[in-house]
Amino acid sequence: MSTSAAQQPSPALFFQTINAHQRTEALKTAIELEVFTAIGEGNSTAADIAKRCQTAEKGMRVLCDFLTIMGMLTKQDGRYGLTLDSSVFLDKRSPAYLGGATEFLCSPMLIEGTKHMTEAVRKGGSAMEGDGTLDPEHPVWVQFARGMAPMMAMPAQLMAKLVDPAADRKLRILDVAAGHGMFGIAFATQNQQVEVTALDWTPVLEVAKENAQKAGVADRYKSIGGSAFDVDFGSGYDLVLLTNFLHHFDPPTCETLLGKVHAALADGGRAVTLEFVPNDDRVTPPESAGFSMQMLVGTPSGDAYTFPELERMFGNAGFSRSTLHPLPPTFEQVVISEK
Amino acid sequence: MSTSAAQQPSPALFFQTINAHQRTEALKTAIELEVFTAIGEGNSTAADIAKRCQTAEKGMRVLCDFLTIMGMLTKQDGRYGLTLDSSVFLDKRSPAYLGGATEFLCSPMLIEGTKHMTEAVRKGGSAMEGDGTLDPEHPVWVQFARGMAPMMAMPAQLMAKLVDPAADRKLRILDVAAGHGMFGIAFATQNQQVEVTALDWTPVLEVAKENAQKAGVADRYKSIGGSAFDVDFGSGYDLVLLTNFLHHFDPPTCETLLGKVHAALADGGRAVTLEFVPNDDRVTPPESAGFSMQMLVGTPSGDAYTFPELERMFGNAGFSRSTLHPLPPTFEQVVISEK
Repeated sequence: MSTSAAQQPSPALFFQTINAHQRTEALKTAIELEVFTAIGEGNSTAADIAKRCQTAEKGMRVLCDFLTIMGMLTKQDGRYGLTLDSSVFLDKRSPAYLGGATEFLCSPMLIEGTKHMTEAVRKGGSAMEGDGTLDPEHPVWVQFARGMAPMMAMPAQLMAKLVDPAADRKLRILDVAAGHGMFGIAFATQNQQVEVTALDWTPVLEVAKENAQKAGVADRYKSIGGSAFDVDFGSGYDLVLLTNFLHHFDPPTCETLLGKVHAALADGGRAVTLEFVPNDDRVTPPESAGFSMQMLVGTPSGDAYTFPELERMFGNAGFSRSTLHPLPPTFEQVVISEK
Repeated sequence: MSTSAAQQPSPALFFQTINAHQRTEALKTAIELEVFTAIGEGNSTAADIAKRCQTAEKGMRVLCDFLTIMGMLTKQDGRYGLTLDSSVFLDKRSPAYLGGATEFLCSPMLIEGTKHMTEAVRKGGSAMEGDGTLDPEHPVWVQFARGMAPMMAMPAQLMAKLVDPAADRKLRILDVAAGHGMFGIAFATQNQQVEVTALDWTPVLEVAKENAQKAGVADRYKSIGGSAFDVDFGSGYDLVLLTNFLHHFDPPTCETLLGKVHAALADGGRAVTLEFVPNDDRVTPPESAGFSMQMLVGTPSGDAYTFPELERMFGNAGFSRSTLHPLPPTFEQVVISEK
């Protein structure tokens, strides 16, 4: 990770980093022009790919060389090919295609936060007007729900298997900030006795309901529209799902919410949290630890919390015990907290 | 470079790349807030660094963790330290400080080109209005001359030693597109019999003249203001320096210029070119090969040329022989072409 062990100082990392924004743009450009799909279809020379994607040959040659340098294509004797990762995640024809997620991950709102990083560091929170992405009914969350659903299908199935492995008894589930709804839907798909109540802002719930319909679980799918902090959760749930939600808030706000979750659970019920959980050093693993920056620039006081921090919040909210579970191959972890 | 050898597909590279722009911003932010300098001065906790840089402690903690993940800081028991590279290149008090180069490398003009990458790929050249950074008297070049001078002192000295190792005879040197002037100045500093004529747009020459003054070679330093394509070079030069210039133009334009260079050289004279020279595969080494993208988005028809391409241009312009010389530890190479 560090270059301090090298014998000679090198400016390589400086240049690589100062130009790193070019990599983001090159990936966006390649997705937009369908370069990976074109190569997956069998086009392999710059001339053929350019023809398929309707670009200049020189432009395509420079882009494909750059994608090769970035490790997203291979090049042999002037012919480009897909890497395993690119064929699985970047060819539009693949079921695991991630290209749709770029619309959310590179939405002007998220990019805007990053642009004001210096001010965010000074302030200790997002320098954007208002509450950043936490503004009520912010359209970014509909984009999120649509763009991220395909990507979340796999983690959702893994989580359902982890939490309800037998899948043989009735479960009432509240899916807080359900978004695309994929998490609750995965539980309902795997266990016919599951009933899901999805909670999110009303425009976002439309996406979740569409997905429940597609998955054939609409008859066991209810919803509550509004903010998780304001609406009545109801009670008697066996599971409350908190997927990628707590990181938007500071610990006191999380504890308030967790108190409400605790009250909504039946005796023996469990809160199931999916989060980017860095190790206590806060710099490993890179994917989870780096997520703190996203929260600094994008939210007033959110963070990526370590397990001891999460454990403390759940404890303060009345939960008896929390356990941490990795969810490979995803970068996130599951915290299961017992009432 | 490629992940295709991995057993399992992973979206890690996709996420790393789509968020790569955060790395550029984090480095800019750290330079702007003088984080590396603060740590070099002995501040090591987030609280102390925040105090020195006048930021929130949380903001500084998240930034320093992110810089650690990026490999630009170390972290041990909650204390941050500089890597060797960071202490040499990013602490303001170091003579090799590169922070000043960010103003040029992240100037709105260069960033703007990158933002229009899709259109540039379609078109095969910069999608910016006008001629991009080649607009006459574009202010980016004064920024370039000021920001890049410290960074170029070392490569300039290496080049002067390579080309004039004995430093014992009279040399008349024309420094084309001299910019900060550091290349010609290095020859004049090492050899008292060198006379330099610097050529560049007039506002840029002011920077070169200042640098010649500082180096104590102003009495052997002349200048010609204007475009290299328009002005009279004079004649009888022993060396013509072409440092980081040819990559802005297409081969026919380069050949026109090289013909003019050839005519301006005395018999036995040499053209000395500094360039990012990718291998024939155009994807290695990454620093040189990746430079093609910078030229695609920033110029109408520039490129990073391979050695056979450069050899051909010099040959077509009348040069008898070109040789390629690495210039470690820089990423660039020197081409020496004999009249």
